[in-house]
Amino acid sequence: MKLRLALAQINPTVGDLAGNAALITQSVDQAVAAGAHIAIFPEMVLTGYPVEDLALRPSFQVASKSALTALATQLDKSIVSIVGYLDQVDGKPQNMVAVIAGGQVKARYAKCHLPNYGVFDEFRNFVAGDSTLVVRIHGIDVGIAICEDLWIDGGITAQLAERTPGLVIVPNGSPYERAKDDVRLALVTKRAREAKAPLAYVNMTGGQDDLVFDGDSIVVNSDGAVIARAPQFEDGVMIVDVDVKAGTSTPDVIISEDSVEIAKPSIPGIAHRLGDEEEMWNAIVVGLRDYVRKNGFTSVLVGLSGGIDSALVAALAIDALGPDRVHGVAMPSKYSSEHSIEDAQLMAANTGLGFRIIEIQKMVDAFLNEVELTGLAEENVQARVRGTTLMGLSNQFGHLVLATGNKSELACGYSTLYGDAVGGYAPIKDIYKTDVWALSRWRNQVAADAGEVPPIPERSITKEPSAELRPDQKDSDSLPEYEVLDKVLKAYVDDDLGRDALIAAGFDKALVMRVISMVDRAEYKRRQYPPGTKVSKRAFGKDRRLPMTSKWREL
Amino acid sequence: MKLRLALAQINPTVGDLAGNAALITQSVDQAVAAGAHIAIFPEMVLTGYPVEDLALRPSFQVASKSALTALATQLDKSIVSIVGYLDQVDGKPQNMVAVIAGGQVKARYAKCHLPNYGVFDEFRNFVAGDSTLVVRIHGIDVGIAICEDLWIDGGITAQLAERTPGLVIVPNGSPYERAKDDVRLALVTKRAREAKAPLAYVNMTGGQDDLVFDGDSIVVNSDGAVIARAPQFEDGVMIVDVDVKAGTSTPDVIISEDSVEIAKPSIPGIAHRLGDEEEMWNAIVVGLRDYVRKNGFTSVLVGLSGGIDSALVAALAIDALGPDRVHGVAMPSKYSSEHSIEDAQLMAANTGLGFRIIEIQKMVDAFLNEVELTGLAEENVQARVRGTTLMGLSNQFGHLVLATGNKSELACGYSTLYGDAVGGYAPIKDIYKTDVWALSRWRNQVAADAGEVPPIPERSITKEPSAELRPDQKDSDSLPEYEVLDKVLKAYVDDDLGRDALIAAGFDKALVMRVISMVDRAEYKRRQYPPGTKVSKRAFGKDRRLPMTSKWREL
Repeated sequence: MKLRLALAQINPTVGDLAGNAALITQSVDQAVAAGAHIAIFPEMVLTGYPVEDLALRPSFQVASKSALTALATQLDKSIVSIVGYLDQVDGKPQNMVAVIAGGQVKARYAKCHLPNYGVFDEFRNFVAGDSTLVVRIHGIDVGIAICEDLWIDGGITAQLAERTPGLVIVPNGSPYERAKDDVRLALVTKRAREAKAPLAYVNMTGGQDDLVFDGDSIVVNSDGAVIARAPQFEDGVMIVDVDVKAGTSTPDVIISEDSVEIAKPSIPGIAHRLGDEEEMWNAIVVGLRDYVRKNGFTSVLVGLSGGIDSALVAALAIDALGPDRVHGVAMPSKYSSEHSIEDAQLMAANTGLGFRIIEIQKMVDAFLNEVELTGLAEENVQARVRGTTLMGLSNQFGHLVLATGNKSELACGYSTLYGDAVGGYAPIKDIYKTDVWALSRWRNQVAADAGEVPPIPERSITKEPSAELRPDQKDSDSLPEYEVLDKVLKAYVDDDLGRDALIAAGFDKALVMRVISMVDRAEYKRRQYPPGTKVSKRAFGKDRRLPMTSKWREL
Repeated sequence: MKLRLALAQINPTVGDLAGNAALITQSVDQAVAAGAHIAIFPEMVLTGYPVEDLALRPSFQVASKSALTALATQLDKSIVSIVGYLDQVDGKPQNMVAVIAGGQVKARYAKCHLPNYGVFDEFRNFVAGDSTLVVRIHGIDVGIAICEDLWIDGGITAQLAERTPGLVIVPNGSPYERAKDDVRLALVTKRAREAKAPLAYVNMTGGQDDLVFDGDSIVVNSDGAVIARAPQFEDGVMIVDVDVKAGTSTPDVIISEDSVEIAKPSIPGIAHRLGDEEEMWNAIVVGLRDYVRKNGFTSVLVGLSGGIDSALVAALAIDALGPDRVHGVAMPSKYSSEHSIEDAQLMAANTGLGFRIIEIQKMVDAFLNEVELTGLAEENVQARVRGTTLMGLSNQFGHLVLATGNKSELACGYSTLYGDAVGGYAPIKDIYKTDVWALSRWRNQVAADAGEVPPIPERSITKEPSAELRPDQKDSDSLPEYEVLDKVLKAYVDDDLGRDALIAAGFDKALVMRVISMVDRAEYKRRQYPPGTKVSKRAFGKDRRLPMTSKWREL
């Protein structure tokens, strides 16, 4: 027997109950038009995800419940819809999925395994469920699990497997990480085999603060073989016919026993996988686009130094928003080299972004005339004058300022608090410098292959990195070469290797000592950095909480 | 039979394994000199608390275990010591207490109930224990619980009570909140009665990032009556003799069966409770002092506007560090009134803090000449020029900048990001404006009562609040009167009442709408605010995690 599923890989907005309900209704209508029997939505699609401590507000809990009840009456009654939302049970919040049929909520399933690591705080925000749910739909026993439920060996999905479901449905809010798609597929395959049933894995798309959801919804058959796979980072409703067996278990709820027929089979697609750079590029673009849009901004402002970081950020912003909504400002001082302005101008000419030049020397001099600042204090004044200029333009014209710092410099504290760290969003804060170059080259190559003008000036990519805050300054005066630095940072920051383990892994001892001492000192600056797209698994910010006041040193 | 306990109410530093071990050794020596039989330390005293995600670093776990083993051999062998630390069990971190006797660890107890709300993230950081521990010491069956274990009805302490301990020992890392001391006492009393045994509750002192630990260690007898209570906010070793019954249960570990005698009874003290203002004042002073000291600073810098917020911060800093380590700078612009400078000067004269004046008009004009900034954008330039000036002095002279914002303006977003929000620590970020006045009056009265010059100029207390960023500006142009505003904020922010509940509670509807709309818009600014002493239960920052990108509105 076949059942037609509609996997709604869509992009809800946290807190936008009315907007999300409208998105859901549209997707259900699409599913009905395509002849689907079950429309499946991502985790907490009605509230958006993650809601963090909003989950704890009673007024929000009540609003979510009411919105679900209202939505149930509005959805097309010819289809069963599986909709995630925030419930309030005995006064406590639960991460819930509702099975909606005939204008009513027929059954509910509460997430049993609550992740509380990395970017997740669910044990803080929800009360865990403790039982499986099987509902009979068109004679098929359908089991439901939510996201983390799938990741736990011997957990609720093992209990569900014992109930011999004919189909397993898994709504997810699974954020993008580099190479996570491979892990997901292996997991989906494994659980389908354990349950001896087809499994439909539905993930959301879009950016939410630091997180990006990449979609990548998957349907496998009971052997774990992929039947259909949605493209990453694209919204849409994927229609898939699955082979299912008539129910033999004891369902908790019977919604319908009538079997269905599919006149004209659907043709499932298995989307092409993106390459590493393309995947990262899309993650950053989606994260940036949604941060701007969902926060009600229409345009962004970037300080263009002529260097590679700001050029990359501008190129990403243009892909996210279009050149008309991206404004660049060059802010040369007496230490800026000639090529800095030229490269910023070339970037503007290549792409058509709005561009202006504001000389900062008079502002800097005004400070230096009033206060005796020298050395690093003097260097920082230049960065802070630029920050104040950007924020002035932001306040005057309503642009969101984008900070241009990358993960390598941020990790080492090589930035000025209230200076180049200024901004409402930091698109590449989770991108190592070596990846900054790789992404820039990749984007230019894509343009060249398409016969377009590559956006990023070649010299911005090839020139030696410099903050240009004093004569002849180079990043390499203060930091190890990025090729080496990034390897140590990955091992220390992302993989959590301690000093001895780093040395045992073959890194030079003096280098290890130098990098660790920079990273450990930089915590305070990182705390004040704006949010930005999370791309690698262990980053700074939300998924890493360290005391600012700590004497612990690896050294 | 009597047993002599030494409750070590001390102030460890997170990560400072060597320093904390030295503190522990000194306290054990004091306990031995006083003839105590058991020395009891706060939760995770060896690592400091809270360690947050440091708990997840394998190298730190191993270092903590090694430090404990080394410490055990060094502690005086004539006493049993109860020492909290971070353990690594099966490769996972546990919040553990060691029972040390004769130079060895004789038993271990892992915290069973892990708080994961408000400022706590323990479910994220530790693996929970699952069993009680009873050890026999001098023939007495001693049960151990850790902090949150005590707060859970029907939890591990109920299991412990069934084992009929002769004494219950509870190491704590319990942060200060307003009026928490009353709650603690009621809880300690209740658990002692349930266990039918005396209970010794030991809490730490000192500041750790946003948290302040206020001590308030308590010993009650088996009826729950208070035998001894340590002063809040003071370090020390409290010696208390408790009546105990010989062991009748089956202990997990027998350390010693020999009974002890006490030749000369100790005289327990019950410390005087502090008044509300005194308690808050001490909390802020301790938090500020330890943030400065534990982060390796020796001096602080405050922008003195002549207003009450900066005057209060300076007075707090002087009580924390002494006037020689507090530097004030007045930064008048053309909108500053004459009394602003006079009051800043008077504050300096009253207290002896370092003082200078830096005129900012030329810096402001330099910006306005180069960039077309008007209205709010122009106002913010002044605040940011001040922020840049403060940070310049900080970078040049090594002072930690103190931000002077209070909770009322921070909640409403009435501050300039990268302007008055600049600083490494914000001592009064969790203090409502009405409490700012109350604390100022209280401190001046204390000085007057002692025949000293009150530190805060009277006019700074009585003048109408103004940011002085445009002619004749008043806070009341933008905010409701603080007396009313603070009541709404307490209900909305601290007590989590929604719109309807606020109106039902009797607040004016238009006022509620106005305040909610300000608070909900201000989230981004709050994220970028420096840490500061947490004084009320629900504050901004660590104990409140909201999505920045959210369309949810109470309105």
